[in-house]
Order: sequence, then C-alpha cells, then structure tokens
Amino acid sequence: MTGTLAEAPFLRACRRQPTAHRPVWFMRQAGRSLPEYRKIRERASMFEIMRDPALTAEVTLQPVRRLGVDAAILFSDIVTPLAAIGVDVDIKPGVGPVFGQPVRTSADLAQLRPLEPDADMPWAAEAVRLVVAELGSTPLIGFAGAPFTVASYLVEGGPSREYANTKRLMRTDPTLWRILLDTLADISLATLRAQIEAGASAVQVFDSWAGTLSAADYERYVLPSSRRIFDGLADLGVPRIHFGVGTGELLGLMGAAGADVVGADWRVPIADARTRIGPDKAVQGNLDPVLCLAPWEVVEPAARDVIASAGDAPGHIFNLGHGVLPDTNPDILKRLVDLVHSA
Amino acid sequence: MTGTLAEAPFLRACRRQPTAHRPVWFMRQAGRSLPEYRKIRERASMFEIMRDPALTAEVTLQPVRRLGVDAAILFSDIVTPLAAIGVDVDIKPGVGPVFGQPVRTSADLAQLRPLEPDADMPWAAEAVRLVVAELGSTPLIGFAGAPFTVASYLVEGGPSREYANTKRLMRTDPTLWRILLDTLADISLATLRAQIEAGASAVQVFDSWAGTLSAADYERYVLPSSRRIFDGLADLGVPRIHFGVGTGELLGLMGAAGADVVGADWRVPIADARTRIGPDKAVQGNLDPVLCLAPWEVVEPAARDVIASAGDAPGHIFNLGHGVLPDTNPDILKRLVDLVHSA
Repeated sequence: MTGTLAEAPFLRACRRQPTAHRPVWFMRQAGRSLPEYRKIRERASMFEIMRDPALTAEVTLQPVRRLGVDAAILFSDIVTPLAAIGVDVDIKPGVGPVFGQPVRTSADLAQLRPLEPDADMPWAAEAVRLVVAELGSTPLIGFAGAPFTVASYLVEGGPSREYANTKRLMRTDPTLWRILLDTLADISLATLRAQIEAGASAVQVFDSWAGTLSAADYERYVLPSSRRIFDGLADLGVPRIHFGVGTGELLGLMGAAGADVVGADWRVPIADARTRIGPDKAVQGNLDPVLCLAPWEVVEPAARDVIASAGDAPGHIFNLGHGVLPDTNPDILKRLVDLVHSA
Repeated sequence: MTGTLAEAPFLRACRRQPTAHRPVWFMRQAGRSLPEYRKIRERASMFEIMRDPALTAEVTLQPVRRLGVDAAILFSDIVTPLAAIGVDVDIKPGVGPVFGQPVRTSADLAQLRPLEPDADMPWAAEAVRLVVAELGSTPLIGFAGAPFTVASYLVEGGPSREYANTKRLMRTDPTLWRILLDTLADISLATLRAQIEAGASAVQVFDSWAGTLSAADYERYVLPSSRRIFDGLADLGVPRIHFGVGTGELLGLMGAAGADVVGADWRVPIADARTRIGPDKAVQGNLDPVLCLAPWEVVEPAARDVIASAGDAPGHIFNLGHGVLPDTNPDILKRLVDLVHSA
C-alpha cells in the first residue's frame, strides 16, 4: 500500500470521493475461513482472543496480510461489551451468543450498566493501537452491534428464528423496550468512541437481524435508538457504516438513522440500493457469501454483476452481502480482491 | 355460512370482486395450535394423517369449525408427493422434511419419477372429496410446493439456513437444475390438478424460501419452472395463489409467473405489495404471525393496520405473513377472524 491513511481508497469511497481502485473488504474476513485463525482458535476461545490485545491484533491483521483487503475490522462480537460489564453471556461454537438470564422485565435490566471502556475493556483499545501501528495507511474499522440486534439476543436468550419474545416486548412494553435499546445504544456508542480514540478510522454498526421488522416497526421502535449511536459519533468525523441482512425495505431508514454508508445484502442490486439509500450516502456490498463456496467460474460473473450494478460513480465499497462463511476457501477471497481492484 | 360456493367471499376476493365481508384464513390453520389436532397427532404421524382420508379431512375441517375462517386448505406438506413416489423422506418433528439421499448430481435424479395421483396418492383426492362434501359453500384450497422450495429441501437434504448446495447447483449446473425444477413443477402440477378435479376450488403454491434469492436469480433460475405449474392449471379456471417469505423484491415476478393472488409477508405493507404485484392481481396477507403470540391488545391494532393498508378496494384476503406458530392461542385467531369480518 502506498499513500496516506486519510486518502485510503476505503475512506475516500465512504466519503463518495473518486478512488484509484474500488475498495473491498469482507465482513467476517477475520475468522474461521482462514487456517491461521483456526490455528489460534485451537488454543483460545473467542473471548480469550478478544481479551488479549496481541491475539486480537493478530487475527484482525491476518486477512489484510493474506487477502490484501482495503480495510481491517476489529475482531470482536456484538455481545463483547455486554460480557465486559459482567453480563452472563457465552459465545457457543456453531450456535452464537447465549445468555444466562434473558432480559424480559424491568428487573432483568439490573444486569446492564453503562460501559466504561477504559476500565471494562481496556484490551480493545490496546488491540486497536497495536493494529493501527501495523496497518500504516490501511484503515481499521471499529466494530459494534446495533441496539435491536443486540436486544434480540438478550431478550431471546440466544439466536432466534422468529424473535417472538423480542417483538412481544417491543409491543407490550414500549417504555421498557426503549430503555433497553437506549441502554444498549449507549454501550455501543461508548465502545465505538473508545475504538476511534485509539485509532480506528471508521466504524460499522451491525444490525444484522433488523430485516425481520417492517419499515413502520423499525422506524418506531428501533431507529431512534440507533440514531443515538450515529449522532453520538458525529463530532469524531469518521465514516459510519450501518449494515443488516434482508433490509431491502429499511435501507432508506438505516441511512436516515445517521449512517454515512449503508450496507445491503444480495437481495437488492447495488443500483437499487443506492436509489433507496439516497444520493448523499455511500453503499457497501453485496455479493451473496454462499456463492464464495462455489468454484471461481461461479464467483467471477456474480462479482462482475455487482460491480456493473454499482457502476463507476464514487461511493461503492465492495463487500459480501453478509459475513464470510466458515467453509469459504480463502483463495477465492483473494481472487475476488484482485478482481475488484482490477475491474 | 350462506350463499353458494361460487360466490364465496374468499373466491370473489381472489377474482377482485366486491364481498360482503373481507375474507380471512390462516396458513397452517390446521396444525399444532389446535388442541384437537394435537390430540390426533398423539396417535398418528403427519404422513399417517395424510394417507388416511378421514383423518386428513378431520384436521382440514377443524379450523373451519373452530375459527369460522372463509376457506379450508388441504392438510398436506410440500414433500407429500415426493413421499408418494417413493422418495426417502421423513418429516421430523421440530425439524422439518429430511431426505435420505440429497439430490446433487444427475444420478440422484433417479429418485424422481412423474407423479400419477390416482395410483400414487389416491388418499389425497379422497380427502378432498370428504372435505368438500362437509364444507358446503366454504371453499377448499389445494396445496402444493413450488419447485424452488421443494428443490431446496431435496438438494440440502433438509431445512437450511444458507441454501449453499442449492445455490451452487443452480449456478454450476443450470441444465441439471432446470431438469430438477421442471420435474418438481410437473409433480406439483399433477397433485394440484387432481385436488381440483376432486373438488378444490382454489390452490396455493408455497415457495416459502424463494426470498433468499435476488430478483435476477429468481427470474432466471426459478420463475420459468414455477410458471409451468400456473400455466398448467389455467384451463381449470380456479384462482391460483403464490406465496413466499421475505419476497419483497420478488412480488411482481411471483405474480408474473402466472398467479392470480400473491401472498406477502409482514415486511411489506399491503398497499405497497399491491403496487408491486400490479392492478390485475389480488393480494393475501400479512399480519406478522409472531404477534399472534402476544395479548389481544397487541394483535388488534396490528390487524387494523393491515386492514387500513389494504383499504376498501376489492381483492384483499386477510392472512398472516407466514404460518400460524405452534404456540398460538386459537382464541386469538378466533378473535382475529371476527375482527376482520366486522372491520
């Protein structure tokens, strides 16, 4: 990489400025698709990696070294700050975050308190400093969950298909719901501010499961709390990315919540996504990650379709429409980076 | 119920004709939410019920008796015709259909042969005759799966989250894919024709998981095979309903495949769904089934929102946005029917 961090293609694209090449990174690029990551996981759990700045830095940097992506993203999980304030949560392999005591009443809120990043999770800022020192002119993206998706795990007690308890709480006790979401927003805001202050030059807020909501419900029950995060970052001047799966109906609102870049999954062509998001924001996405399990002959035309839909207008960051799947061959990801850079 | 079958509100609404009241039925209205169904399941598996015309008729009629819905739907499963032609498939409680030998190569296609409804599943037509004799002026909806969703189970070997094998086959071997989908379309067509000839006065084709596809992929890899079903039913003159979950991007194409009525899930307001589907088709839906797990105070305003979005124009059939969840209190469904009828 040449050039300065401030002029990195990824950051310029977030600001809708022209770039010498189209930037690309992959959600979950640090993770089980990489043999060097799996090797570390043989001796350390996910939380053990996150609480060890050197290990976090190592797995965060692995995909940058191997794939040549245009940005790193801090290795973390959306429940990491909750674990840091003492909430009983485990990340079960093959399952996801599982909570000891789901939050469904106001009494359950006692598990939550404000996050003090310096005291509660100093290892995250330290990892950011280590990564940024190594990355040079390649940007690091800070990582946090959006209130709805974090709340869905907390209310259900773990991953869910229907979100029955979450939607019931949202509608039967909107006051408690709002307190919960605002509390979670402030926790995400605190960790993101700490990551930026330690050197992250952009952030992504993951609202992975917001797509289960109608636009009306999203606007009424979710958007105000998500906005707390984006508004709370405004003074720091870094690009703010907002992402969810199956959010075709929500793209405009997710931008309106205060993001500078909105991520779209593979269901909506990038050209349509831009129309829905509006002209004053950038767009990120959106190759179907499942296709990366197929041979290159399948991946290449699909990637070219994404690029064709995005066109040459500035403000497109190539990514998958969701995270890299564990069985993905990293060689496919490497070829994808090269294709995006040369297309 | 008074009036003739041909003038039943459900059938009139399918044809976009005015009705005295707004018709309503629920996907999976026959099933685990009803204690009288669970009682039968204590002594009979799903396939045992389906292969016994009297039992099938009984569980098909149960929700009509208890809830007063405007239509019955034949108790069946999208894999029932496959079991009937000897494919090794089981419906595992809490899981769904599981196949002994997934279809991934042309050799695997040997499991499939054309369905001969009279010889392979005479019990279905007999059940239809029993139900129709009992129903009088209430219509019975015939039941079948759409090729994509049936293929997804067959290729994955069971339920899936990512549809990795399905999407890979679709793209790496489009010829085999097309043969598979056309074969499945012809099987669904055969069972639907037999159900109509036995007395069903409408059909619903379930493409529950089509929403995992982009519109471009749906149009290229799925729509032509789905159209085989709808075109193949045209001469019989009964309303054809087409439904899937998360299909906001596909609603227009699902109508264009040849349906008279398109079902929408809760993510798209009925008014928007109608715009996407077009003026010459009716619409069905779309209350979030999860809300029916909440108290009536939550259900009522949400149902009124659906009705308000649908407005007074003819051609709306009230339904949930997906099937009734097993834990649903049938009293809530009964109140919902009464509300829709009186609103």
